[in-house]
Amino acid sequence: MRTSRLEAFSDGVLAIIITIMVLELRVPEGPTLHDLGASATGLLTYLLSFVYVGIYWNNHHHMFQLVERVTGGILWSNLGLLFCLSLLPFTTAWMDEQHFAATPVITYGVNLLVCALAYWVLQSAIERDQGRGGALATALGRDLKARSSPPLYLAGVLGTLLAPWLGVALYTVVALMWLVPDRRVERYLAAHPAPGQ
Amino acid sequence: MRTSRLEAFSDGVLAIIITIMVLELRVPEGPTLHDLGASATGLLTYLLSFVYVGIYWNNHHHMFQLVERVTGGILWSNLGLLFCLSLLPFTTAWMDEQHFAATPVITYGVNLLVCALAYWVLQSAIERDQGRGGALATALGRDLKARSSPPLYLAGVLGTLLAPWLGVALYTVVALMWLVPDRRVERYLAAHPAPGQ
Amino acid sequence: MRTSRLEAFSDGVLAIIITIMVLELRVPEGPTLHDLGASATGLLTYLLSFVYVGIYWNNHHHMFQLVERVTGGILWSNLGLLFCLSLLPFTTAWMDEQHFAATPVITYGVNLLVCALAYWVLQSAIERDQGRGGALATALGRDLKARSSPPLYLAGVLGTLLAPWLGVALYTVVALMWLVPDRRVERYLAAHPAPGQ
Amino acid sequence: MRTSRLEAFSDGVLAIIITIMVLELRVPEGPTLHDLGASATGLLTYLLSFVYVGIYWNNHHHMFQLVERVTGGILWSNLGLLFCLSLLPFTTAWMDEQHFAATPVITYGVNLLVCALAYWVLQSAIERDQGRGGALATALGRDLKARSSPPLYLAGVLGTLLAPWLGVALYTVVALMWLVPDRRVERYLAAHPAPGQ
Repeated sequence: MRTSRLEAFSDGVLAIIITIMVLELRVPEGPTLHDLGASATGLLTYLLSFVYVGIYWNNHHHMFQLVERVTGGILWSNLGLLFCLSLLPFTTAWMDEQHFAATPVITYGVNLLVCALAYWVLQSAIERDQGRGGALATALGRDLKARSSPPLYLAGVLGTLLAPWLGVALYTVVALMWLVPDRRVERYLAAHPAPGQ
Repeated sequence: MRTSRLEAFSDGVLAIIITIMVLELRVPEGPTLHDLGASATGLLTYLLSFVYVGIYWNNHHHMFQLVERVTGGILWSNLGLLFCLSLLPFTTAWMDEQHFAATPVITYGVNLLVCALAYWVLQSAIERDQGRGGALATALGRDLKARSSPPLYLAGVLGTLLAPWLGVALYTVVALMWLVPDRRVERYLAAHPAPGQ
Repeated sequence: MRTSRLEAFSDGVLAIIITIMVLELRVPEGPTLHDLGASATGLLTYLLSFVYVGIYWNNHHHMFQLVERVTGGILWSNLGLLFCLSLLPFTTAWMDEQHFAATPVITYGVNLLVCALAYWVLQSAIERDQGRGGALATALGRDLKARSSPPLYLAGVLGTLLAPWLGVALYTVVALMWLVPDRRVERYLAAHPAPGQ
Repeated sequence: MRTSRLEAFSDGVLAIIITIMVLELRVPEGPTLHDLGASATGLLTYLLSFVYVGIYWNNHHHMFQLVERVTGGILWSNLGLLFCLSLLPFTTAWMDEQHFAATPVITYGVNLLVCALAYWVLQSAIERDQGRGGALATALGRDLKARSSPPLYLAGVLGTLLAPWLGVALYTVVALMWLVPDRRVERYLAAHPAPGQ
């Protein structure tokens, strides 16, 4: 099975997830700046989730440059990841509508954590298919950023018990950490012009 | 007519169907776990329909790897399948909002049944166009899984008359049955490197 | 400018238009067949508009197989067509929610008419760019179906003044007329293996 | 990193943005022309935003014909542009629902201004990556249209303080200005058959 249609389908789903969140934004009910201000946190949480979906799209895209064939396991792991990401508009809206109450903020963090795990499952399925010394495992190396994200999400979830802003701050930190471009795949492709597995 | 644009359009429609269901999920009205619990069945029915659309996308994708030309009949059968699948967000939402009352659960099962028939119509249109000994008919062989699904949906519909959970359980069983990877197309392609019709 | 990205973008917009109409369908408020029956006309109007968008996608797809370059005029004519088609979810919902009252049924017919005109503008822009004896004009020939649709829409609009079901019937007739596969482009491509302009 | 998947993802997001605005249109509540008239300004603001997203899609498409590789900076600038554009359905709905009150009209203008700046950031990121005498900078030349848009948006924002219709008129003027086809990229490609950087 070619990867091109899996990539196209994933792009479609991610494009919809990243965009429909704007439909959840409540249009201000009055014509003043004060009314707009009531939507401000909605805009900020939308921005945070937009960045997260953007990060996943970016990482997904890089990863699949090193994938040459799709197995049933890879296909369903990929759908699993898309399912977890598709819940972000739901948890984002809940967190915002409840004004960052503890439980919704924890739920949002759990959603981020589950997305990270689903991504890890997908990555592992690909690495298993490529075998020892496969392209993806070689390119990713020790994968420190991916390893450190789940503990940080967990810290955010626990921090929310102290103060919700602490959770949101930690979720934001992880997003910023991933904004730094990751050149491992590009470096691998530069060093291995014809990717061999 | 090339198949590429038909595949791209179908991917687009399926990506939207699979994702907009999350817009139907009601964001909990309070900030507690109890409020979130009220959305739990919504999440589970969303998961079930997500898996079904994923299965159709997967099967559609495999099938079209053995299709080389698109006739008017194939095109409209394909649109018929997309129409039936596009009703899933509607029947899913009804089943969930009415707390798995018998009629909505039956309607959901009928929707699944109609999707299976529409898929069968599409498959038959392709097989007819490819003629005796065509690639698709050869690859699919006796097609036991596809033949057993409609009776199981029917059993689910009838079972709902006894108890709705029985219907939902049977719909879930069919979904699980399809999760098992189907290697017929891959096997056919491996054995026929240049697909001839 | 290549046509591929214009086709991909148009496919995306058409896929969304054809699918979001299901979001406008009101989920029945009770759990009985009677409640579902209240959505029945909604389902039928959705089906009619689904078929129309499917027809436009189909014709658009065939037409662009004979287009090799995109000018500014073609690009904006194409966006004009997409705009007109994007109003169909709106006019469909209005017609259904007002139970086929005369004015909404007329508005729906005017929408269909405007779509047909926008398609004609796009087709003319392509023909003008291809010059005398161009591929598209040659393939389409006398284009009887396209010429007869606007008068039929007009007849539907006027018929609605007598009885709205007459308008809906005529809109349905035009849709059925277009369901018949149109082989002109395929015939042209078969006769002109390398499309010359 | 290839540009094709970035283009496909951007096309998907833009196709969704341009289409979901129709979901924000309120279906008239009665069956008369008068009821439809209440949606008239909604249709016009939808048309204005549709044209703007169409312009950005068009310019984005032309620009990426001169881009051969995507860096992390280009990728995130592109997501930044998509984020700004994705707010248009929100600001469009607010402007319309508040009947062109000053603050929403100003907010819409600020949104247009921010989109223009985000586009400029993306263009600069590409030009920086291509270095002195790069394809994009050469093709765009003095880029008068892009330079004159932000001052016109600002004039629209300030004009709204006098009378909101003045702001809307200026936003419309900028849109009309961009409707005129821009042949710089085509001219560059004609003169440089194999784009060298």
